[in-house]
Amino acid sequence: MKSAHLLPRIAGFAALCLATAAAASIPPPPSAVDRAQNDDIAWKITEDLTTEIGPRMAGTEAEAAARKWAVERLKAMGFQNVRDEPFAMPTWVRGEEEASLIGPFHTQPLAVTALGNSGSTGAKGLVGDVAYFASYDDFLAAPDHYIKGKIVFIDHQMAPAQDGSGYGQYGRARFTGPNAAAKRGAIAVIIRSIGTDSHRNPHTGNTNFEAGVAPIPAAAISNPDADQLVRQWRRAQSIRTKETPLGYTPAPLRMKLLLTPRNLGQQQSGNVIADVPGSDPAASPVVVACHLDSWDLGTGAIDDAAGCGIVTAAAKHVMTAGQPRRTIRILWAGAEEVGVHGGRAYFAAHGNQKHAVALESDFGADRVWRVDFKLPESAKSLADRIALAVAPYGVTRGSSPASGGADIGALVRAGVPAIDLRQDGTRYFDLHHTTDDTLDKVDPVQLRQNVLVWTATLAILANSSDNELP
Amino acid sequence: MKSAHLLPRIAGFAALCLATAAAASIPPPPSAVDRAQNDDIAWKITEDLTTEIGPRMAGTEAEAAARKWAVERLKAMGFQNVRDEPFAMPTWVRGEEEASLIGPFHTQPLAVTALGNSGSTGAKGLVGDVAYFASYDDFLAAPDHYIKGKIVFIDHQMAPAQDGSGYGQYGRARFTGPNAAAKRGAIAVIIRSIGTDSHRNPHTGNTNFEAGVAPIPAAAISNPDADQLVRQWRRAQSIRTKETPLGYTPAPLRMKLLLTPRNLGQQQSGNVIADVPGSDPAASPVVVACHLDSWDLGTGAIDDAAGCGIVTAAAKHVMTAGQPRRTIRILWAGAEEVGVHGGRAYFAAHGNQKHAVALESDFGADRVWRVDFKLPESAKSLADRIALAVAPYGVTRGSSPASGGADIGALVRAGVPAIDLRQDGTRYFDLHHTTDDTLDKVDPVQLRQNVLVWTATLAILANSSDNELP
Ligand SMILES: [Zn+2]
Ligand SMILES: [Zn+2]
Ligand SMILES: [Zn+2]
Ligand SMILES: [Zn+2]
Repeated sequence: MKSAHLLPRIAGFAALCLATAAAASIPPPPSAVDRAQNDDIAWKITEDLTTEIGPRMAGTEAEAAARKWAVERLKAMGFQNVRDEPFAMPTWVRGEEEASLIGPFHTQPLAVTALGNSGSTGAKGLVGDVAYFASYDDFLAAPDHYIKGKIVFIDHQMAPAQDGSGYGQYGRARFTGPNAAAKRGAIAVIIRSIGTDSHRNPHTGNTNFEAGVAPIPAAAISNPDADQLVRQWRRAQSIRTKETPLGYTPAPLRMKLLLTPRNLGQQQSGNVIADVPGSDPAASPVVVACHLDSWDLGTGAIDDAAGCGIVTAAAKHVMTAGQPRRTIRILWAGAEEVGVHGGRAYFAAHGNQKHAVALESDFGADRVWRVDFKLPESAKSLADRIALAVAPYGVTRGSSPASGGADIGALVRAGVPAIDLRQDGTRYFDLHHTTDDTLDKVDPVQLRQNVLVWTATLAILANSSDNELP
Repeated sequence: MKSAHLLPRIAGFAALCLATAAAASIPPPPSAVDRAQNDDIAWKITEDLTTEIGPRMAGTEAEAAARKWAVERLKAMGFQNVRDEPFAMPTWVRGEEEASLIGPFHTQPLAVTALGNSGSTGAKGLVGDVAYFASYDDFLAAPDHYIKGKIVFIDHQMAPAQDGSGYGQYGRARFTGPNAAAKRGAIAVIIRSIGTDSHRNPHTGNTNFEAGVAPIPAAAISNPDADQLVRQWRRAQSIRTKETPLGYTPAPLRMKLLLTPRNLGQQQSGNVIADVPGSDPAASPVVVACHLDSWDLGTGAIDDAAGCGIVTAAAKHVMTAGQPRRTIRILWAGAEEVGVHGGRAYFAAHGNQKHAVALESDFGADRVWRVDFKLPESAKSLADRIALAVAPYGVTRGSSPASGGADIGALVRAGVPAIDLRQDGTRYFDLHHTTDDTLDKVDPVQLRQNVLVWTATLAILANSSDNELP
């Protein structure tokens, strides 16, 4: 056990450790990374937040309770300047949700969940014919009369990928499908969940309607339900209801839908911020971010309690090992899921200050497998040192520029350097934005690897020179 | 592809096949097992039933639609004497269901589903303190004042097992827990789902109240929700609400529960029966059974559409290969899930007739891994022939007596010989009685192995002599 743990340390800090061991008979004080070897800080934050607060939808009383909990926890951990920086944001909440396929076959319920910003069907629901599209591009290419007055169903073929690369491509059905369908006269939009599991837990997530477009009901059904809809659709297509000289009219696939979400107008959210003050007050801070809010369906364990646990555990280990030169600023952003309101509020309040570098953990709790950089030329050696420090944990160096996370996106777009400690996303879209995002899905071994990688990285960044980072 | 398929056939019928090949230049007509090599009958039955009918709760209009569908399908397949033998049975249907943990922590919803025969909370629901029991035996051992007026929660430690052996032991919490708790003054019972998955899909199933015991609300929560309840319970135990000289009073764990199931009184169900008439009208029939009804949550693909697909495909292959000596009777039983009403109705109508042997498929769609016999002494060589015929498909011979399935239970208890073609149950209780029992969970390769094993067995049984079986 011990020798196994020692191995990465020796490999990572080979020259330093061997030299120290040869020169002194008294062992040096534990480094930040030594402390992270037996980390349970990240696990405790994840467990406590998901157990005592649970789901914490942006703008609701549950998110406010989470912020109160967060301020207390960060203070108790010894961080400085712990505060809740409030902001207002438009708040949408889920209502009743039911869907069923009602013909031409025996009526069957579907596992359905509204997308964020969905319109309401009203209390009586609506009934319509399904217009099936095998992909978002098929939907875009279809003539308007296929869409007008219909319940549009958008299918897709997303598969698991370590880098999560399917989300951007297939996610368009969710991000922009309802708006596009509303403009073309659809009465509702149903999408195959932007997810890779085969459980009857549909995946929610935000959609957006342009100003001036009245939101229509928009929802996701689970993968098994989408499979069922496709089977019924295909069978209905071969049922001849009316013969004409040009062919036949197939039986319509009929759906009933009830969604009663509501808009609560502007409500309060906030960013919880804490600092590890650096020894050089003139040095710009390192920002490590996650988001505190979650969707309402699960308890937000992998999205993103674990991320808050990881970045906070790393900051704590660096702090305990000895005051760093730069301030480490921990940002637990509010209202990320529903439009990155916290990230924008942080930028509005602090974007005019200099930031050395920004990192975010918001892709689950599975291991970091790759590191990508977006750093100034001056930081070439810094990047090399980080790549060397994380290599013993199985992290390879990527060649793509770092993109940062949602909550640090405004900073990065404004030129702040960024590093991505990319997590293994193979399982992420099995769980993401579903009721199944719960604590049991967090693997403690992989969570600890995250903390080790983050601690090794943060120890270097927080002690970097002004010649290396802005 | 072809040579791989050929291998088990040669191994299984080695002597016969090689002899035939040597003696004749014209190949013999395909045997029943040859026909089953490329079977899609079982898949089609499973797909069509779950797609066109879906959930088919006993006593409801959906089960009646399934019976109508079944009669048409079995007639179209060329079976004889296809009929629906109706019977009446008490019918319970699900209503609204909601549960949440409301204190001492932030309110959180639980994924909950009522057990069959659960009482109702009324439309307003109820609120109470949770009394936690780590096992059913802990519950039995607890003094009454721990239970009276409380919402009893019964935990357990069921784990996956190939033979499904955890179900009997841990299932007691569901089968008899609510009745026992009602008699001891509990206001409701919540159990950890009798299931082995970690998804937020609670497992339903029947419970029973003795005559004279008023049903109390009884429900299951999913494994992740049970984990959450346990975490909250432990934390609440350490919150001191009142100090006394003898210790302290912990904070109660509060739960809100809404369940509004209803009893519809006696409704009609039925057994769908079809025959492959044997060439010897005096010979007693072989009964192959499954159940047509399902729980209302999923589409009943593994429980038990696949079972009906398997036994029916085997009967069809034996019929097509050449008329067997004995009649094969296919029994698609009604109302199994809610009390084996179909099995009892079959026995009431036909139990006085002689039956050669009975078999049932009702443990999912994964591969057969073991065969067990409960046969008269006269059938020793018959059992050997079957064990030899199924061995090439990876089926080992067990040493336990066959127990039969639920729907043939009355026959077997009355002395009818039985054979169990035991399926791999490792995954079964991940899916059983949940919304997740859907077609995508059926593995076509393992389903086909079932059909091969059943066909090989049935071909032997249906041509067995009167010296071997009654
Ligand atoms: Zn996130
Ligand atoms: Zn998210
Ligand atoms: Zn069953
Ligand atoms: Zn069952």
